[in-house]
Amino acid sequence: MLVSKRSRYARNPIEEEDLLADELIKKGKKVIKLNRGDPPVYFPTPEYIIKAYIEALKEKKTTYTSALGIKELRDSVSKRYKRIYNIDSSSDDVIVVQGVTEALSFINSALVDGSDKAVIFKPYYPLYVPDLLIYNGKPIFGKYEEENNWSIDIDGLASTLKKQSKRPKYMLITNPNNPTGTVLASSTLKEVVDIANEYNILLISDEIYDEIVYNGAKFTSIGQLAKGMPHIILNGASKDFDATGFRLGYMLIPEDDRVSEQLKQTFIGYAQARLSPNAPAQYALAEGINNIKEHRKSIKQMVSKIEERANFAARLVNESEYMHTVIPNGAFYIFPKINLEMLKIKNDKEFVEKLLAEEYVQLTRGSGFGEQSHIRIVALPPKNILEFALNKINNFCKKNSKEA
Amino acid sequence: MLVSKRSRYARNPIEEEDLLADELIKKGKKVIKLNRGDPPVYFPTPEYIIKAYIEALKEKKTTYTSALGIKELRDSVSKRYKRIYNIDSSSDDVIVVQGVTEALSFINSALVDGSDKAVIFKPYYPLYVPDLLIYNGKPIFGKYEEENNWSIDIDGLASTLKKQSKRPKYMLITNPNNPTGTVLASSTLKEVVDIANEYNILLISDEIYDEIVYNGAKFTSIGQLAKGMPHIILNGASKDFDATGFRLGYMLIPEDDRVSEQLKQTFIGYAQARLSPNAPAQYALAEGINNIKEHRKSIKQMVSKIEERANFAARLVNESEYMHTVIPNGAFYIFPKINLEMLKIKNDKEFVEKLLAEEYVQLTRGSGFGEQSHIRIVALPPKNILEFALNKINNFCKKNSKEA
Repeated sequence: MLVSKRSRYARNPIEEEDLLADELIKKGKKVIKLNRGDPPVYFPTPEYIIKAYIEALKEKKTTYTSALGIKELRDSVSKRYKRIYNIDSSSDDVIVVQGVTEALSFINSALVDGSDKAVIFKPYYPLYVPDLLIYNGKPIFGKYEEENNWSIDIDGLASTLKKQSKRPKYMLITNPNNPTGTVLASSTLKEVVDIANEYNILLISDEIYDEIVYNGAKFTSIGQLAKGMPHIILNGASKDFDATGFRLGYMLIPEDDRVSEQLKQTFIGYAQARLSPNAPAQYALAEGINNIKEHRKSIKQMVSKIEERANFAARLVNESEYMHTVIPNGAFYIFPKINLEMLKIKNDKEFVEKLLAEEYVQLTRGSGFGEQSHIRIVALPPKNILEFALNKINNFCKKNSKEA
Repeated sequence: MLVSKRSRYARNPIEEEDLLADELIKKGKKVIKLNRGDPPVYFPTPEYIIKAYIEALKEKKTTYTSALGIKELRDSVSKRYKRIYNIDSSSDDVIVVQGVTEALSFINSALVDGSDKAVIFKPYYPLYVPDLLIYNGKPIFGKYEEENNWSIDIDGLASTLKKQSKRPKYMLITNPNNPTGTVLASSTLKEVVDIANEYNILLISDEIYDEIVYNGAKFTSIGQLAKGMPHIILNGASKDFDATGFRLGYMLIPEDDRVSEQLKQTFIGYAQARLSPNAPAQYALAEGINNIKEHRKSIKQMVSKIEERANFAARLVNESEYMHTVIPNGAFYIFPKINLEMLKIKNDKEFVEKLLAEEYVQLTRGSGFGEQSHIRIVALPPKNILEFALNKINNFCKKNSKEA
C-alpha cells in the first residue's frame, strides 16, 4: 500500500465539504459558509495589531526567530496571565506554536506511545482526535451533558477513570467550549482539577476562547485552580485577537515541578525541529496582548456583537420545531440537536451534505465532534445573514419532513 | 514514563547549542552565529516582497485561507515551474505548507508505517531523519561521496537497493545540497531517476536552494527528468525569496498518475487538519514569485554576494592545515573535514562545543548531518566576519593541536 495506515485519521470534518462548496461557488451559487470559526471574516483584525505587524515588516523582522518564539511575545503572554488570572509564570514557561493545532501535535507526539490513552470529552473539537490516533493513542471519552447545559459529567468521569488499568497520559478540556459554547463553572472545574489530582493525570485546558464570554458567564482559567500541579494551557491569536490567519498559538506551562520541567524540555526539541513560527506575526501578537487599552476596546466591541448574534441565532433555532439548542455563553457556535425522527434524513452527515447541495448553506455535522444528530452553526455573520441561513435550514427541514 | 519513546528523536543539531549561546550573549560575550542558514539576517528580504506583505495586511487578509494555500500562490508556483523548468502542472498540484519541515512531517506521517524504510543520503539535512523515526520508519542510507565532490555514489545506491526485501517508501535527495553545497550534475540525476524507476520508488527532491547556484554550476530540477513517474518537489520562500521568517514552503506533485493523485488526496487531509498557513505571507510570496523582474534583480545580487563569500570562506578553510573542504557551488554552506588526528579533541561534537564555549563561534557538528569529523559553517556574513570567525577557528585548532 502506498499510504500509511495512520493517514486515514488526517481529516477535518469542518472542511470536508469545502471542495463541494468550491464547486458550487464556481457554478455561480452563493454559498453561505457557516462551517469555519473565522472571526476576521466578519470582524477585521484590529487596526493596532495590523499596524504592529506592518511595523515589524518595515523593520525587516523576517528572519527565523528563536524556535520557542520571540522574547517579547513570550513575556507578553506570561504578563497577560498574571494580569488577568493572577497566574505566576515566566517567559520561559511559554512556547509559541503555529496555532493550537501544532501544540496538539507536539503534545500527542511527545506523550503518547502505542496503547496509551488520553481523556477527551464529547462533543470534542474535531482536531483533538486525529493527532491522538496518528500517534497510536486511543481516546477515553468523558462527557459534556446536553441535559445539564453541556457541563461535565463528573460522576461519569470518576467512574471511567476508576476502570482504567493504566494511567491516561492527559485529560484535555475545552473552556469555553467549541462546539457547545459552554463556559464551565468554576466549581465544576475545581472538581475536574481534583479528579486529575487524585488520578495523577496531566491536565490540559484549551482556552482559545477565554475572552469571548457573554450572557453574564464568568470564565475561570485552569491555571487559577490547578496551582501546584502540572498543567498546560493552550491559547493564541486566533480568537481573542481576531487573527486566525496569523497562525499563532502558545502553550503555557506555568509550574516548575519535575513533570512540568520535563514537558518544557521535550517541547523545546519539537519546536527546534520545525525551526520557528512566522516572525513578523509574533511582533503583532505581542503588541496585541501588551496594548491593553486598545485590546479592551476591540474585544468588547466584538464580544458584544457576538453575544447579540449568537443569542439571535439560538432564538431562531429554538423557534423551529426541527431543532433545539442550549443557549451558548462563550465562543460563537450554536450546536443544536436535530429532531431526525421528524425528517426523511438518516443522520447529521446526510443532513449537512444535502443542505449544502440543495440550499447552499455549509455547516459542520455533529458526528464530526463525536455527537450524532447535531449540527454546528457558526454564529459570526450579521443577523440578516444568520436569519437568511436559518430560514433556509428550516425550509430544508420542512421539505424533508416525514409529513411533507 | 511521562514522555513517549519517540520524543527523543525531536531534536535539531543546528540549534542544540542555542541555549549555551544565549547564556554567553547574556554574559556580554559577542557570539558569531554561523549555525543557522538564515539569509535575511545578512540580506534583508527584498522590498517588493515586503510591500506586497504590507499591502495584504492593509487589505485585512488575515483570515484562515484554504488549507492548501491561496489560489494566487498555488498558481504562481505552477507557472514558475513552467517558466523556469518547462514542467507542466496546475495549481491543484501545489500544496502550500508551513515550511519544508511541515512537508517532511506530512510525507512521513502519510507514507511510513512501522518497519517501513526510506532512502536518505549522507550527509543529510538533519531534519530529514527525526520525522522518519518519529513515525516508526528507518532510514536506508545512500551516500554523497566527498572524494567525488559530494556527488551521489550510484553503484553503492543500486547495490543497497538490491538488498532490500521490501520496497522503500521514498528516496529523498537534496539538490543543491545542504550541508555540502553540491549541485548535482544532470547526468547523475538521470541515473537517480532511472534507479527510482527501476525499483519503483517515489522520488522526492528538496530543491529549496534551486536559484542559489554559482561558480558556473547548472541546476536541474528532478521534475525535468522524472516526467511520467510520480515525484514530489519541495521548495519555498526561505532561501530563493530570502524570507525564512515567513515560514512558507510548498510541495509540487506535477504528475497525474494514480500514485500522484493518491498522494495529493492524502496531503489534503493533513493540510486541513492544521487549518491553513499564515495568510498575508502567502500574498507576499505570490508576488515574490510573480514579479519576475524584481526577483531577478534581487536573486542576482544575493547570489553574487554569496558566491564571493562562500568562495572566500572555502579558500580560508583550505589554507588551514587543520581542515579541508570541497568548494561549494550552491546554497551557502562550507562543510570541511577536520583533521582530528592533529588535535586533542575527540570528535566534531566536542570541537563545536569547545569552540563555542572558548571562542564564541557557533557552528554545527557534522555528525548532526550523519557525517563524523566535519563541521558546517554558514558562509552568509560579510567577508570581514567570516575572516574573523575563521581566524578564531584556526587559532582554536592551534591551541588544541597535539603539538601545542
